[in-house]
Amino acid sequence: MLVQKYKGMLSAKSVIRQLSEFATARGNEIGYENVFDFSLGNPSVPVPSEFTDILINMLQNEDPMTLHGYSPSLGITSVREKLAASLEKRSGLPYRKEHVFMAVGAAGALAHAFRLVTEPGDEILTFAPFFPEYHPYVDLSGAVLKVVPANTEDFQINFEAFEEMLSEKTMAVLVNTPNNPSGIVYSAQTLEKLAEILKRKSEEYGHIIYLISDEPYREIVFEGVDAPWVAAFYDNTITCYSFSKALSLPGERIGYVAINPACRDAEDMVQMCGQISRGIGHNCPPSIIQLAVAEVLDKTADLSVYETNMNILYKELKALGFTCVKPGGTFYIFPKALEEDAKAFCQKALQYDLVLVPGDTFGCPGYFRMAYCIDTEKVERSLAALRRFVETEYKA
Amino acid sequence: MLVQKYKGMLSAKSVIRQLSEFATARGNEIGYENVFDFSLGNPSVPVPSEFTDILINMLQNEDPMTLHGYSPSLGITSVREKLAASLEKRSGLPYRKEHVFMAVGAAGALAHAFRLVTEPGDEILTFAPFFPEYHPYVDLSGAVLKVVPANTEDFQINFEAFEEMLSEKTMAVLVNTPNNPSGIVYSAQTLEKLAEILKRKSEEYGHIIYLISDEPYREIVFEGVDAPWVAAFYDNTITCYSFSKALSLPGERIGYVAINPACRDAEDMVQMCGQISRGIGHNCPPSIIQLAVAEVLDKTADLSVYETNMNILYKELKALGFTCVKPGGTFYIFPKALEEDAKAFCQKALQYDLVLVPGDTFGCPGYFRMAYCIDTEKVERSLAALRRFVETEYKA
Repeated sequence: MLVQKYKGMLSAKSVIRQLSEFATARGNEIGYENVFDFSLGNPSVPVPSEFTDILINMLQNEDPMTLHGYSPSLGITSVREKLAASLEKRSGLPYRKEHVFMAVGAAGALAHAFRLVTEPGDEILTFAPFFPEYHPYVDLSGAVLKVVPANTEDFQINFEAFEEMLSEKTMAVLVNTPNNPSGIVYSAQTLEKLAEILKRKSEEYGHIIYLISDEPYREIVFEGVDAPWVAAFYDNTITCYSFSKALSLPGERIGYVAINPACRDAEDMVQMCGQISRGIGHNCPPSIIQLAVAEVLDKTADLSVYETNMNILYKELKALGFTCVKPGGTFYIFPKALEEDAKAFCQKALQYDLVLVPGDTFGCPGYFRMAYCIDTEKVERSLAALRRFVETEYKA
Repeated sequence: MLVQKYKGMLSAKSVIRQLSEFATARGNEIGYENVFDFSLGNPSVPVPSEFTDILINMLQNEDPMTLHGYSPSLGITSVREKLAASLEKRSGLPYRKEHVFMAVGAAGALAHAFRLVTEPGDEILTFAPFFPEYHPYVDLSGAVLKVVPANTEDFQINFEAFEEMLSEKTMAVLVNTPNNPSGIVYSAQTLEKLAEILKRKSEEYGHIIYLISDEPYREIVFEGVDAPWVAAFYDNTITCYSFSKALSLPGERIGYVAINPACRDAEDMVQMCGQISRGIGHNCPPSIIQLAVAEVLDKTADLSVYETNMNILYKELKALGFTCVKPGGTFYIFPKALEEDAKAFCQKALQYDLVLVPGDTFGCPGYFRMAYCIDTEKVERSLAALRRFVETEYKA
């Protein structure tokens, strides 16, 4: 018998994917350049040329037996050493290779993190608005994802609701800062308060509540914004990272798990990741991608376009009367819709060839997400459509 | 709390890994060229130069945004089309892209196959001797692996024991031909009889018993040996493949799941693989490796060295009086040890700098595996050590 839980999932289509398919279909009618497609969070700037040069150089000069050989299950040792050194330099925490595990992107990293600290039925709390894939990621691992309602005032944490939802069954709290979809960066104050609660509740429940920090947008932070190192606030932190966004390498599936060196059993946890891999068929990211990324750990693609686009959109949205918290990073913005039903709002926007994603998808009804990882020229051209939409539908 | 099942696994060290570590340590003492290390199944010939040329060409000339962009969760469409065409040409079965799913190596492919057809507690049967990683792969998926004892006469299937072990709880049967560790290729007769039993028992139990065929050694088949296409014998076959061995790319984690087009719900099963991926953090093999492999689907590395090595070893083993079934493929041979306890036998061999793996590891005590994916020159030099070992320990 086919496993019904997976078969059942086939009929539930992702809203983001449906919108993206609409944008493609509409693009075939009127030219994709005329569809203001803000649906997908796909990097829009190329990988740094150093990365390409390094890969070509390795392929031309290295022994293919070494280059394409098996990676140890925790990652190639030299790569882990370089990564730990880079993390130490940036965070001030004493990361060593024993604290890092190479993973196939953030999804692979999170798959290991969830299995490290939860048995089936245990709970993981996360905060709305949140990346919707967290649901299948967590639910299919056997754990249960609970979502703390949003603090819509500034999209920091709704601590009151959080404390109410914490329970003996909570084994981990999952944060994503800079955040998809809000673009908000958690402040030091937020992280301090979060850590204080986690310490207090860990003690109260007699077991560690781990902090799992999903940070694919860590390098995309805007001017004047302080993006604190999450793990520095709480010892028992598992950092999950992907190079997809910072290096514009989403297809190459490269990321890592880093355990705070002060976390209890940190080195065992990395070794345990190697065992978890055997059960989920992970077996390490591709060797050549590991080796090439290790040479550009402190570089990024030219990420400035995202800040440029954010400023253009934020200014126009405010001018049009939207309630909107200014993003501190990422390539997302999350304004309040102009009617209560954000799904209806986004549906109407499609008539103006504006593809926006309703906040319901992110556990935050009444808001909508715009992914502005597109050309600035197109963002500028979208403003007229945005104005027409708002004026016709909401100010007539 | 850390999940104890993974923590507990840390203390159980793999026998193969321990032997490989011994070989490395001994190599540091006497020079690795003097250690006859038959422990690891790692390809010993380089990837075809076409693969490297294609990768370099793509990196130099393709748009990095496309090259490194997200792959759809089932794999890049053009890659799946080419793969299906190649499979159709070779197997005669009407594979289409809808029947194939790109996976990160055979481990990734198997992780999907097991989850497609088993709920926790369901049984998967496999046949000794078998690849020992099947245990963590299956056990950690929630299913239960049961091992049918070996037919040591020719390492085809022990059908009597198989029929006794089949039960209502059997949801899948896992085969590996050409086989690690025996080097044996299942004959058409074996596969016909297997299919007949599976059909009869599926009907009797009222549910499909799927055949999961793990085929990483499919291209390494020796002269005069017929290696039938497993899926051609049984409709409900899930083929799992890795390019690791045939293309000498073990580190690049590229393989696939192919569902026999005649399998019930074949296309749904491929779609379900995309859902399973969300739960295990899979998210597709790296884009550039998919694209490059698609251009060399019908090529292999120069695999002739394996047959050369096999002939040298087989001849010497027979001359020394070993009972040994001649391998039909792979880079393994699986002779009977010269004493009942193969672990003691392999331990003694270490004194002659011969690193052999006891068959206990593969569910077949009393035998031992030699992985001859090493230089022919070293295989030839090993013969004197082998003679000395046998004559001193067993003929003195």
